[in-house]
Amino acid sequence: MRTRKRKGAEELLESHPNLVILNPEDAKGRWREVFGNDHPIHIEVGSGKGAFITGMAKQNPGINYIGIDIQLTVLSYALDKVLDADLPNVRLLRVDGSALTNYFEDGEIDLMYLNFSDPWPKSRHEKRRLTYKTFLDTYKAILPDHGEIHFKTDNRGLFEYSLASFSQYGMILKEVWLDLHASNFEDNVMTEYEAKFSSKGQVIYRVEARF
Amino acid sequence: MRTRKRKGAEELLESHPNLVILNPEDAKGRWREVFGNDHPIHIEVGSGKGAFITGMAKQNPGINYIGIDIQLTVLSYALDKVLDADLPNVRLLRVDGSALTNYFEDGEIDLMYLNFSDPWPKSRHEKRRLTYKTFLDTYKAILPDHGEIHFKTDNRGLFEYSLASFSQYGMILKEVWLDLHASNFEDNVMTEYEAKFSSKGQVIYRVEARF
Repeated sequence: MRTRKRKGAEELLESHPNLVILNPEDAKGRWREVFGNDHPIHIEVGSGKGAFITGMAKQNPGINYIGIDIQLTVLSYALDKVLDADLPNVRLLRVDGSALTNYFEDGEIDLMYLNFSDPWPKSRHEKRRLTYKTFLDTYKAILPDHGEIHFKTDNRGLFEYSLASFSQYGMILKEVWLDLHASNFEDNVMTEYEAKFSSKGQVIYRVEARF
Repeated sequence: MRTRKRKGAEELLESHPNLVILNPEDAKGRWREVFGNDHPIHIEVGSGKGAFITGMAKQNPGINYIGIDIQLTVLSYALDKVLDADLPNVRLLRVDGSALTNYFEDGEIDLMYLNFSDPWPKSRHEKRRLTYKTFLDTYKAILPDHGEIHFKTDNRGLFEYSLASFSQYGMILKEVWLDLHASNFEDNVMTEYEAKFSSKGQVIYRVEARF
């Protein structure tokens, strides 16, 4: 989903270096220092406007969250939410999902979320999908043994692809939801996108998979 | 789906011992003799009224098919179809899906189909679902190494369960379809149940999984 460019987004992000980590290479291996505690760290790759990451952070004060997005404007809206809610357990990172091993030490991340990732439906773009095997290599590195990815999307093609991709990578599907909002899954925190499309009757898929 | 009992079903089945194998223990290890050729053998567990197995047999004369169902009446309707179409490559078996190793030698079956199996939605009936791990043990035994199960259903709960069950058993999901009839899957042969429920707009799920 494209978002109209926001004027002053870059300046806003740069004016909060305590929340938006500008040189994340320097934080590699010392994210617990950044947060100032030993709580588990969960990341969302493609955190967009931040409704999920900030919602989760409110719901789970004992967990630290890092929202990762490459787009300036959406990251600036996520920052708005972090500031509004005065959340001590969220940081934001403007980096690309393919380079996570530059910013996180092996096993440094406890759990990872992918929400409504770009489906890249054309076969020739398969390698860009965030559930393609080269991305899984990266996620595996920064997660602990048997680390988990929790993934949701409304895109049927991407979900079909991702279930097979996880499985063929050797990951185990712990649980699958083929209509999340019709299930008894509790404490679901919706993304902006999810709220909009599920209200139109779009089915939401979800999976918890582990390495 | 319950079917009204058919009068004379048992007699009909018994009057065609060349098509309805009455003592399948005796055929164990010699199914290629039963068919009189070396073609691959595919089975459908829960073949119901036989639309799928007979449709597949027409489409693929170079493959032998065995339809397996425990219910007399539905098996007799399947026999009607085999007789009507004069199919040399179908046999029917009235046995329970949990006892397949009594009737098939290790690796004797090349591929296995499960279609619209009873969902047994209550947790306490999990062990009755045809994709429960004890059934997978049985299927694994009679299939070759890396043998495949092709499974379709309209039941969301059973499909969610089965994807996780296959995966947790160590099986690999080769491909997943979350709306079979909206996909470009070709040569789909519909079961009676599938034709009826998909015409009402019900989504059909499908997976190809391998050991």
